[in-house]
Amino acid sequence: MTRIERSLAQALGLARGAAAPPSLLAAMRYAVFPGGARIRPRLCLAVARACAEDSVGLSGAAAAAIELLHCASLVHDDLPCFDDAATRRGRPSVHKAFGERIAVLTGDALIALSFQALAHAASAAPARLVTLVGIIARSIGAPSGIIAGQAWECEAQIVLADYQRAKTGSLFAAATAAGACAAGREAGPWHALGERIGEAYQIADDIRDVVSNEEELGKPAGRDQALGRPNAVHRLGIGPAVARLEDLVQSAIEVIPHCPGAADLRTHILSEASRLLPRELARPAA
Amino acid sequence: MTRIERSLAQALGLARGAAAPPSLLAAMRYAVFPGGARIRPRLCLAVARACAEDSVGLSGAAAAAIELLHCASLVHDDLPCFDDAATRRGRPSVHKAFGERIAVLTGDALIALSFQALAHAASAAPARLVTLVGIIARSIGAPSGIIAGQAWECEAQIVLADYQRAKTGSLFAAATAAGACAAGREAGPWHALGERIGEAYQIADDIRDVVSNEEELGKPAGRDQALGRPNAVHRLGIGPAVARLEDLVQSAIEVIPHCPGAADLRTHILSEASRLLPRELARPAA
Repeated sequence: MTRIERSLAQALGLARGAAAPPSLLAAMRYAVFPGGARIRPRLCLAVARACAEDSVGLSGAAAAAIELLHCASLVHDDLPCFDDAATRRGRPSVHKAFGERIAVLTGDALIALSFQALAHAASAAPARLVTLVGIIARSIGAPSGIIAGQAWECEAQIVLADYQRAKTGSLFAAATAAGACAAGREAGPWHALGERIGEAYQIADDIRDVVSNEEELGKPAGRDQALGRPNAVHRLGIGPAVARLEDLVQSAIEVIPHCPGAADLRTHILSEASRLLPRELARPAA
Repeated sequence: MTRIERSLAQALGLARGAAAPPSLLAAMRYAVFPGGARIRPRLCLAVARACAEDSVGLSGAAAAAIELLHCASLVHDDLPCFDDAATRRGRPSVHKAFGERIAVLTGDALIALSFQALAHAASAAPARLVTLVGIIARSIGAPSGIIAGQAWECEAQIVLADYQRAKTGSLFAAATAAGACAAGREAGPWHALGERIGEAYQIADDIRDVVSNEEELGKPAGRDQALGRPNAVHRLGIGPAVARLEDLVQSAIEVIPHCPGAADLRTHILSEASRLLPRELARPAA
């Protein structure tokens, strides 16, 4: 965990300066620290290690970039015009703490910072930067990144598979692809792993939204029902949703590309997956 | 002009896809076409030509990236929580036409697209991408890019020079530096030119806000006074403001770095500057 926090702190260091407006800097920091489970950057680094990373600065920056983009999306999703969420990670959301204007700008500035951090770490491996910027920009923008996923919530008719793949899957797929690319491996074969983990994570999130309370979540529970958003538990029922999650984790393991550290990566993914469910629903790991 | 529109259309083509949410795509297009004066990408390409550009795809992408970021900033600046502007370029602003949620996401997606377009064009010159992403990300983020400039408007005490340098100057400085970098030249010496042109443009904008009407501007006039924003005409008076603008254009000409096409670049800048002022205030170009 320490390595991710350090990479994030280094990235935020690039945003500091005598000429910086103080509220924006404070809000950027507030949006990133303390974090949640850091599940995407942990996955990115686990893949980089499995690929025998040779540039720890670049893989650290890739992991940080992905987490900064995740934090940016949370800040904008919480805005009054979207979820109007008063709390996040157990304390006031950014727009409640700093105002709506600074919240809009904090999301924007974190997006910019993620690319700045990547470029800052890439001078030793410029060819990898071309691929990394492509992977990461596509995973957030249109046609099918997390911003496009959020935009599906504004459509009268939603294509559910496109919505979920974009809203959650895309950044997980970027985490695995970017981890491999930062380590000098071909990125393409690593997308499927992230997509499946992302889908599992989405179902776990749906389950927690239904069965957990606000204290456990650090944000209001039951939001999907309140906001009319699709939720796997509403659609399938709790038992089938848990079974679907377990299937996805198993199928993720099966698509890990050949790499030096595949066994350790498998262990990492199973260990992470065992923490996705509320304790009362989790079965002991196989 | 055609080359810039083509580069922008190519960039927007990267955002299309069967899985894209239709409103987001339509709003991104609406935010970019038809454009304003395209002054920043014109400057970027003028510098690239002056530097004997050898990669027209990369300089076109750099110019497009800068214009996409300018368009993104207009969409977010117009939001209800900032200027609450109902019109832009003579028609409804993005949030009036598509709703506030799509407007937030359009700005976000245009930021992502600008980096995607850069990476897409950079495979032949990856080392230049490292510098380009750094220049362009810094010009929009914290501590002193256009987002930081906008954030100064949220501070109780504003540092006027930092505010104006960030809000306007930074993207002009990126336009000149990126134009040089895309052409394979050292970027650093080109920042001062863009900074001075940006400052001149800011003063011209202040003058137009005071002396023009809504029809001429394509947006409401007198906004600086209405919103309590600093304006050079309020501070200096109209005559001294015009004189300051002319001084800045002259000093910009004087800092053009040595390059093969310096004479043509000088002509370009003087020609652009002659259009900055409303006709009744402009003096014939020297």
